[in-house]
Amino acid sequence: MDAAVCFSGGKDSTLAALLLEPFYDVTLVCATAGLADSAAHAREAAEAVGFQFERVGLEERVVREAAERVVADGFPRNGIQAIHEHALEEVAALGYDTVADGTRRDDRVPTIPRAFAQSLEDRHGIDYLSPLTGFGRGAVDRLVETHLDVESGPSETVPKADYETEIRAVIAEEYGQATVEECFPEHVQTRVRGRQ
Amino acid sequence: MDAAVCFSGGKDSTLAALLLEPFYDVTLVCATAGLADSAAHAREAAEAVGFQFERVGLEERVVREAAERVVADGFPRNGIQAIHEHALEEVAALGYDTVADGTRRDDRVPTIPRAFAQSLEDRHGIDYLSPLTGFGRGAVDRLVETHLDVESGPSETVPKADYETEIRAVIAEEYGQATVEECFPEHVQTRVRGRQ
Repeated sequence: MDAAVCFSGGKDSTLAALLLEPFYDVTLVCATAGLADSAAHAREAAEAVGFQFERVGLEERVVREAAERVVADGFPRNGIQAIHEHALEEVAALGYDTVADGTRRDDRVPTIPRAFAQSLEDRHGIDYLSPLTGFGRGAVDRLVETHLDVESGPSETVPKADYETEIRAVIAEEYGQATVEECFPEHVQTRVRGRQ
Repeated sequence: MDAAVCFSGGKDSTLAALLLEPFYDVTLVCATAGLADSAAHAREAAEAVGFQFERVGLEERVVREAAERVVADGFPRNGIQAIHEHALEEVAALGYDTVADGTRRDDRVPTIPRAFAQSLEDRHGIDYLSPLTGFGRGAVDRLVETHLDVESGPSETVPKADYETEIRAVIAEEYGQATVEECFPEHVQTRVRGRQ
């Protein structure tokens, strides 16, 4: 069976791929509208961990609407959730047997309710997997430490391919950098450099 | 890191163990009060798939209270949930770094809410994992078919080591076989005979 894992270059989606690797023919898939340099960073990270890679295009409209939502809310949660749901639909349409992501038990965003998962499965004739939903923060950290070589830093210095990168680029362009900083709490991003 | 996987001899807990095997030193742990011939069946299944095995005792009171609950409810859900929560506490106290079970996304019982998982982790200083929480029914069935050799049949003919077996034994003894059949819907049980 083959599996497409939605991939940002970060530790969660990479760890999800490692968990599936013994059971599925895994391809890491980066969904991006091309509004930042995302796909190149994701491809580099995918090669560093030795997985096949594919890019799927998101409509620019989806990211721009998410950026508007983030500015209106003043926080990123709902905008990121909207892009992720849209990305899952696009990846589910690619023809893989299985679609997976790096959603974790202790995350607030993105979250995929069981009803959404089952609907995605039924409409596309796929299995949807979220291998990290059964893992807490501590377990994820310990597995990452043991199995991955990870670079950490503030969002603006770690080049990544997640939805936040594109939303930040759109907000910076339309509203200026100060609005980016108002909407996104400072936090540490990770990028995977390889396996341990 | 070592991991104790709560084990009934069935396909779900075995599949959970297979998913963890590349990352953890796995022991299958059967929690039983010894009211049915459970531990022997679980040990046999554990040996058939090549994992280490340990039995942990449950207080007979826990199973008897669950049986009373099942008879009072007329269905097994709450009784099974109560035993599973108790078993997780006992297994978490054994000293393993990690405790896991075969809870699945699409099951109604047992379910482990995030708050219970985090409380278990904090109180015992362990990681709690439910590797199948991120897998739907279809994905579990396909993985089982590919990786396990499984025997299926009605509950009364497939010797197993799950909580249902002990609850049925207690109800049969105290209320008679007709009450067992009133409380438990007919369903197909599985027992693992080995790997594929």
